[in-house]
Amino acid sequence: MSVFTPVTAESLSDWLGGYAIGRLVEHQGISAGVQNTNFFVTTTLGRYVLTLFESIPRAELPYYLYLMAHLAHHGLPVPAPVADRNNEYLGTLSDKPAALVARLSGRSVMEPTAQHCAKVGAMLAGLHLAGQSYGRRQENPRGAHWRTRTAARVRPHLDASGRELLDAELAFQAQQRYDALPRGAIHADLFRDNVLWDGDYIGGVIDFYFAGNDALLFDVAVTANDWCTEPDGSFDPDRSQALLAAYHAERPFTRAELDAWQPMLRAAALRFWLSRAEDFHLPKPGEMVLVKNPDEYQDILRLRIAHGCPMPPGS
Amino acid sequence: MSVFTPVTAESLSDWLGGYAIGRLVEHQGISAGVQNTNFFVTTTLGRYVLTLFESIPRAELPYYLYLMAHLAHHGLPVPAPVADRNNEYLGTLSDKPAALVARLSGRSVMEPTAQHCAKVGAMLAGLHLAGQSYGRRQENPRGAHWRTRTAARVRPHLDASGRELLDAELAFQAQQRYDALPRGAIHADLFRDNVLWDGDYIGGVIDFYFAGNDALLFDVAVTANDWCTEPDGSFDPDRSQALLAAYHAERPFTRAELDAWQPMLRAAALRFWLSRAEDFHLPKPGEMVLVKNPDEYQDILRLRIAHGCPMPPGS
Repeated sequence: MSVFTPVTAESLSDWLGGYAIGRLVEHQGISAGVQNTNFFVTTTLGRYVLTLFESIPRAELPYYLYLMAHLAHHGLPVPAPVADRNNEYLGTLSDKPAALVARLSGRSVMEPTAQHCAKVGAMLAGLHLAGQSYGRRQENPRGAHWRTRTAARVRPHLDASGRELLDAELAFQAQQRYDALPRGAIHADLFRDNVLWDGDYIGGVIDFYFAGNDALLFDVAVTANDWCTEPDGSFDPDRSQALLAAYHAERPFTRAELDAWQPMLRAAALRFWLSRAEDFHLPKPGEMVLVKNPDEYQDILRLRIAHGCPMPPGS
Repeated sequence: MSVFTPVTAESLSDWLGGYAIGRLVEHQGISAGVQNTNFFVTTTLGRYVLTLFESIPRAELPYYLYLMAHLAHHGLPVPAPVADRNNEYLGTLSDKPAALVARLSGRSVMEPTAQHCAKVGAMLAGLHLAGQSYGRRQENPRGAHWRTRTAARVRPHLDASGRELLDAELAFQAQQRYDALPRGAIHADLFRDNVLWDGDYIGGVIDFYFAGNDALLFDVAVTANDWCTEPDGSFDPDRSQALLAAYHAERPFTRAELDAWQPMLRAAALRFWLSRAEDFHLPKPGEMVLVKNPDEYQDILRLRIAHGCPMPPGS
């Protein structure tokens, strides 16, 4: 989404008076992100990112902000929210809920190697381990309830083969028992564009606004489906093994997770097929979401059903 | 101080098991710092600095660690302490109090320009403003009490002109009324080597282990005496005006501060003359402090007494 709530230098300067990060030098809209308005903000003391929340209910925002703070506090490279002088993360600017976070350095790598995938796998495990001590709970906003609701809305817009696939996969997923899987706070959207690389290191994991509590393995499946795939959606075994082995080295997979791996890869593919199909067929009025091709994840789902998938180590 | 408490890879790996920052890749001693043992620590998830505290009493350490956490939390580029899985900053390693902090990027600039001094002045004001909401209190460990005690110990080792200068300056400082000055948490050691530059930006302000509660103006004086001086100790007016104007723009000096500026520059010079003279004449057994030339700050003190000093803007 491009910038669509404007913020004047004057109102931003006033607003920054509530913080201890110096005075405004400049701000610049960021034409990325799918549900928020973001600006790079430079002050006399540093560089930050300002987010205005366009669609997430205000009551749900503390879960995300305190999660980022918790992970940063435990030493992981996530954007630490900046507290104002009243020690609050969340304020109001241009009549929208608004927060400042530290600006992390680095840039996305869109053609990752097995080495990148290993680092992402290790980092994801680290986020899961640190998240275990996070006290707030909020259901994964794109979890099972959302899936049922969204499938019903999207189904009429699909062609016959799409409807057949959707019905069969919903029935298959309904049979799965994911209850025994370790749960916790998950990122749930760790795509290539949400990792910033500072040379060989991960300098930042960003965009926690799809996070929630769910099976940790769902997060691994979302991540593998994006990081370890060829352009046609099939897995690159080198990259997928690198990601899974590195994750396993930090947080060993449980027996239940090994058993659930293949169904979970399908659940993760289904989630992105559905959200993209919803954005494509049922765009919200006035929303300028960058519409991604829903077929990409329909193809990935078909591939995950058709082929044996790489298994985590130890299985 | 060079590394003098060894830490084995095995014991460090064990210790890192209490954190959520991945597994040890390597650690390397840092041959800098005057009172602690420091290591660069690289894990599978990131880069950190490990500090073993050699001489600061354990009971005084939370003041420093929580101050760094407070300032980082408010968006300033200081090394954020890393919490372990029990949410503690302070642990024990090799029988010493130990803490991990985030490793900041950048390097020191030892020949600063007026532009550097302006950024340092602004950052110092930002630290002071953010520090106003810090709840813990600990007296500046190199404040008035320390000065009296140290002057008595150092005096017998000075030559006649040094003793004369010391006696006169102690008498002069005893007459000053600093009570009306704004107080708060101060860094108290913001020398050139404690600021890391990331291009034109300050990427890190480090080494908070002389911090304490005292007059904010003392911190400005310590900083100006280092950043704005020529090799002979005299002020470079361009740099000192840049530093003071930038500080003033963030936190305007009060009338009492403008009046106290010249005596405070002398107090700040005296503090470093005394600590260097102590290190030089009365080294502690077994301590491998990098001994700095005490005459440098004796000269600075004489210059501050002899010459009009640049005044903060508005005076």
